[in-house]
Amino acid sequence: MSNIPFSGARLWDSLMQMARIGATPKGGCNRQTLTPLDGEGRALLAHWGAEIGLTLTTDRLGNMALLRPGRDPSRKPIAIGSHLDTQPTGGKFDGVLGVLAGLEVLRALHEAGAETEAPIMLVNWTNEEGARFSPPMMGSGAAMGAFTEQQVLDMRDPEGIRFGDALNAIGWAGTTDPTALRDLEAYFELHIEQGTVLEREGLDIGVVTHALAQQWFTVTVTGEESHAGGAMTYRRDALVGAAVLIQALESIALEAGGDGRATVGQVSVEPSSRNVVPSRVVFSVDLRHGDEAALDRMAEELRSRAMAVAAERGLAIEVEPFWAFPQTQFDATLAQHLRDAAKARGISFRDMPTGIGHDAVYVARQVPTVMIFTPCEGGISHNEAENITPQQAEAGLLVLGDAVVAAAGIARS
Amino acid sequence: MSNIPFSGARLWDSLMQMARIGATPKGGCNRQTLTPLDGEGRALLAHWGAEIGLTLTTDRLGNMALLRPGRDPSRKPIAIGSHLDTQPTGGKFDGVLGVLAGLEVLRALHEAGAETEAPIMLVNWTNEEGARFSPPMMGSGAAMGAFTEQQVLDMRDPEGIRFGDALNAIGWAGTTDPTALRDLEAYFELHIEQGTVLEREGLDIGVVTHALAQQWFTVTVTGEESHAGGAMTYRRDALVGAAVLIQALESIALEAGGDGRATVGQVSVEPSSRNVVPSRVVFSVDLRHGDEAALDRMAEELRSRAMAVAAERGLAIEVEPFWAFPQTQFDATLAQHLRDAAKARGISFRDMPTGIGHDAVYVARQVPTVMIFTPCEGGISHNEAENITPQQAEAGLLVLGDAVVAAAGIARS
Repeated sequence: MSNIPFSGARLWDSLMQMARIGATPKGGCNRQTLTPLDGEGRALLAHWGAEIGLTLTTDRLGNMALLRPGRDPSRKPIAIGSHLDTQPTGGKFDGVLGVLAGLEVLRALHEAGAETEAPIMLVNWTNEEGARFSPPMMGSGAAMGAFTEQQVLDMRDPEGIRFGDALNAIGWAGTTDPTALRDLEAYFELHIEQGTVLEREGLDIGVVTHALAQQWFTVTVTGEESHAGGAMTYRRDALVGAAVLIQALESIALEAGGDGRATVGQVSVEPSSRNVVPSRVVFSVDLRHGDEAALDRMAEELRSRAMAVAAERGLAIEVEPFWAFPQTQFDATLAQHLRDAAKARGISFRDMPTGIGHDAVYVARQVPTVMIFTPCEGGISHNEAENITPQQAEAGLLVLGDAVVAAAGIARS
Repeated sequence: MSNIPFSGARLWDSLMQMARIGATPKGGCNRQTLTPLDGEGRALLAHWGAEIGLTLTTDRLGNMALLRPGRDPSRKPIAIGSHLDTQPTGGKFDGVLGVLAGLEVLRALHEAGAETEAPIMLVNWTNEEGARFSPPMMGSGAAMGAFTEQQVLDMRDPEGIRFGDALNAIGWAGTTDPTALRDLEAYFELHIEQGTVLEREGLDIGVVTHALAQQWFTVTVTGEESHAGGAMTYRRDALVGAAVLIQALESIALEAGGDGRATVGQVSVEPSSRNVVPSRVVFSVDLRHGDEAALDRMAEELRSRAMAVAAERGLAIEVEPFWAFPQTQFDATLAQHLRDAAKARGISFRDMPTGIGHDAVYVARQVPTVMIFTPCEGGISHNEAENITPQQAEAGLLVLGDAVVAAAGIARS
């Protein structure tokens, strides 16, 4: 437990100030990436950084890095990061908590006059949300090699506006190479859980040890259109076949153990008439698991159940891969710093995976990385009703701050 | 078995001539109600009627009645009817077969110089399909009291055109009261099955003894939106709940016996994102049974399964009635005429219900009525690929003709 005076109250105050930029009538935030409001949010962060002497570097994708030097010139920075951009009807905490908790760690170090061995860097990644420019996590993805810089600059929003032009328009295109952000000793990201595990279990902190592997599919069930007045006997109802599989997917996830998830989020039915037996149903499948082999088994089970349903019901069923994301292991030493920090402060915690993509998941491809989750009310996120308490934010801050200080090392003067 | 020379070849020839009006490149017909092409079809029928001395009366909704007098002035007409209008991508036989088989019965009587005791009337009902003006079966429905004449005249198509104006525009608004068409001794309707029961069982004729009662519902399943990365444990997935019910509905129909049918034709999922657990699913339910009490039990079973699924899965499920149609019994004596006719000609047949609405179902509210089904290829209908063989059409014609003659009585000269 460090004796750095991390202030939950100051963190909360900064969260509320940032939330005014793009504030929505229902208490949320609409500060979408590369909009003028995103520019205002960035300027406020830059201003707060300047107040405590941080050096701002912005790369060609607009990723902002605010550096506090360390004493040991041979060490690379310990980074803390997340994102200030929000969904169109987003909340005040998704991403913002991670950035401003990082700022508070640096403010407290500054206030205490403490010097760390390693430098500490605060990062605000561009376009984590993917709401305006899809896919999400573009800034961190490009920095870590998942996309090229040019790919990202050429992305277009639904109105046809180019990423690079939007970035220039708000004046936040920098000059450095985004891949320079790989040059870190460690990366920490504090984020709201966006789920209900911590809340339901009454815990303060999730030590996030890994990100689930994902395999997404598109399933097409083809039967035969017929009239709803016709006998049941001869039907080849694509929707009932799909319903059997949708139910089976739930079992597949439950049988795959605690880390398994299966979600069908989209369904389309043809010809979509009240009195016509559906001839064609297309649905999405999102499978996740912390273990690649277990995920492969889930996908295999989906295919074999699809074959069985097709044979039983005279249907044709295609299971096509749509997208995949590998399992990502976070750093064991950094995770131990988090557990030690929580224990020392008497803050309750558990290990857990993240099933959700975060900048940290890309960063972990190049840099030892860990994430900290804090509970959020009802698991609600990407929603103006997103909510946490000051106490929850403070618990996250303290664990983050102590672990960062432990990783960076306090210089003895 | 009558000795009237009903000609399958002449019927087929007329079917092919009528099919040229609105012919589509794929071999179907687009002769939607109250379009100029519908006007052309009507004119051709009127012309054919005039050739054999039929008296045409058109009512204020455009229902066409072509009368051949009988010898007995005290008897009301024995009617044969169906419709000439088609779906936008309809076939050559749905409706048309019934009208032109009726025409062939009258042509053969004319050719034979045969006089019947009762008059025989051929009816072409306006807007059976309901494709342009919804709901379907407007002409027969209004004639039999299901709608008022004014309601029908004021209906509008998707472009805002009023039914009454469209009818005037093609010059087919008559002057008589549609309800005069209730004044019939009996009503026969020959129609393609639009299902596969006859085809699969290798039978020529379905003696349609009743129309199934229908109850339609809208089911709304409300759960909780959450991220696809979140644990399975705490989910309240509206779609999995809906899938369980969709599967249960199949069992409900199968357990309700041979007449039971359950169809889910429309499903909408919110928020409809690949990686979001659905919070709300709305789906249609179409339940049918030949027995009202059995249908009520099916609906009751749907409600009780919905309650069970809601309780098990922490969902809210609403089952709202959307529309209902009563069970309709066809006339036993007329059905026996059909069986006798088929037996005498060595034509195979079975009794069966219609699960599909037809003009006959409305007519049966006021007039002793029966229907005859003939097979159609693969049960395909409302489709340009709709197909029957000349032999199938002829079998229907012969059974229809003999039964009509039996009902009307041949006058001894």
